[in-house]
Amino acid sequence: MADYAMLIDEDKLEDWVELFAEDCDYRVVTRENVEQGLPNILMWCDNKNMLRDRVDSYRNVNEYNLHYDRHILGPLVFRNHKDSVWSFDVAYSLFQTTLEGESRLFSVGRYEVSAVLGKDQALLKTVKVIADTGQIPSLLATPI
Amino acid sequence: MADYAMLIDEDKLEDWVELFAEDCDYRVVTRENVEQGLPNILMWCDNKNMLRDRVDSYRNVNEYNLHYDRHILGPLVFRNHKDSVWSFDVAYSLFQTTLEGESRLFSVGRYEVSAVLGKDQALLKTVKVIADTGQIPSLLATPI
Amino acid sequence: MADYAMLIDEDKLEDWVELFAEDCDYRVVTRENVEQGLPNILMWCDNKNMLRDRVDSYRNVNEYNLHYDRHILGPLVFRNHKDSVWSFDVAYSLFQTTLEGESRLFSVGRYEVSAVLGKDQALLKTVKVIADTGQIPSLLATPI
Repeated sequence: MADYAMLIDEDKLEDWVELFAEDCDYRVVTRENVEQGLPNILMWCDNKNMLRDRVDSYRNVNEYNLHYDRHILGPLVFRNHKDSVWSFDVAYSLFQTTLEGESRLFSVGRYEVSAVLGKDQALLKTVKVIADTGQIPSLLATPI
Repeated sequence: MADYAMLIDEDKLEDWVELFAEDCDYRVVTRENVEQGLPNILMWCDNKNMLRDRVDSYRNVNEYNLHYDRHILGPLVFRNHKDSVWSFDVAYSLFQTTLEGESRLFSVGRYEVSAVLGKDQALLKTVKVIADTGQIPSLLATPI
Repeated sequence: MADYAMLIDEDKLEDWVELFAEDCDYRVVTRENVEQGLPNILMWCDNKNMLRDRVDSYRNVNEYNLHYDRHILGPLVFRNHKDSVWSFDVAYSLFQTTLEGESRLFSVGRYEVSAVLGKDQALLKTVKVIADTGQIPSLLATPI
C-alpha cells in the first residue's frame, strides 16, 4: 500500500490503476454507513476498466491538479490468507494542500484490502475505503 | 503496535486488553510533565485487571460510542532488549471523528513500550503514552 | 528514517546530524517550486559541517525549545539502488505542539532519500524534503 499512496499523491493515477487486478473492486464507504448497515457507496468501480475510465474523466475535466494529496499510512494489520489471496487492513490519514500551500486534514479511516500474490508481483483485488470522516468526495475527486 | 491501534480504533477494547501481560503497566503522561520531572499521571493501570475494569466502566457508562478514534503510527524505533524483553518507541497521531463525521487532530506523541516475546506471541509489559498534546482525556475516554 | 524522525522530535539534533555522511546534501524545497521548475530552496546544507553549524546556531539562539515536533512517517517506498547507494521516498506529516500543549498540523510532504549502506550502518547521503505545505520555516527552525 506504500506504492498505492505515493502514486496517488504524486498524481500518477494511471500507474495507480496498474496496481489493481482486472477483476478488482474499489469502493469508498463511510464508517457510519457500514456500522448502521446502510448500503450507501460514495464511489464504486467493480473492475479495472471502470478505474481507468474514472482516471480518464478526471484528467479530462481537470486540466490542472487543483490540490495536492498526501497519505500517511499506518502499519499493515494482517487479517488472513486463503491460498494466494492475502487480506489486511491499513489505517490512513489523508491531507490536502491547496495550490496556495495551505494543508489540512481531509479524511481519516482505514483500508480493507485483499491482494493476489503472484510469482513476481501482488495485484490488488479489493480495496474498500472505510472513511471515518463523513465528508463526501465530489464526483471527480482523486481517489482516497 | 499495529494491532494495538487498530483494536482501539475498531472499538474492540476487550481484545485490546488481551494484548497486555497480567503484570502490565499502562500510563498516560504529558511530555511537559516528563520534561519538567513532574509526577502527574493522566491515566494509570498497573495491572491487567485494572485495564479490564476500565474497559468495563467505559462500556457501562457509554452505551454508544460517542466518537471514532483513528491512530496513525509511525515506524517502530528499536531501543534495546534484555533477554526476552524488547523495548521500542513508536510515534503516534490520533484523530477523532464525531458521529456527524467531522475529524480533527486529537493528540500526538509517542509510546515507550516494552514487550515480552514468548514462543507464540508477544505481550505488552509497559506502555507509557507520552503525549505532546496537553489536552487531558476525560476519565472515561478511550485509551490512547 | 524512523531514527531520523524520532531524534528530531526528541530534540536530539546533535545525534540527528550523526545519521548523515560527511558529503551529505540536505535541503528543503516546496513542491510548488519543484513542479514549476523554480530554483528556490528554503534550507540547504551541502555537507555535514553545515548541518553541525546549523544545529549549533539553533542551540545558541534558542535557549529553550519553543515547541515540540512530532513526525509521523508513512512506509518507505523503495526507488532503486546502485551499488551500495539505496534510494527511497517516505511520506511525512509533521505536527507542532506549543508549550501550552496545543498541537497543530505544521507540514506534510515527502522525503527523497539516498543512503549509503555500509557494513555496520547506513548513512544518509541526500535528504530532499519536498513540502506540499508552502509555509516557510524560519531561519532557525528545527529541521523537517
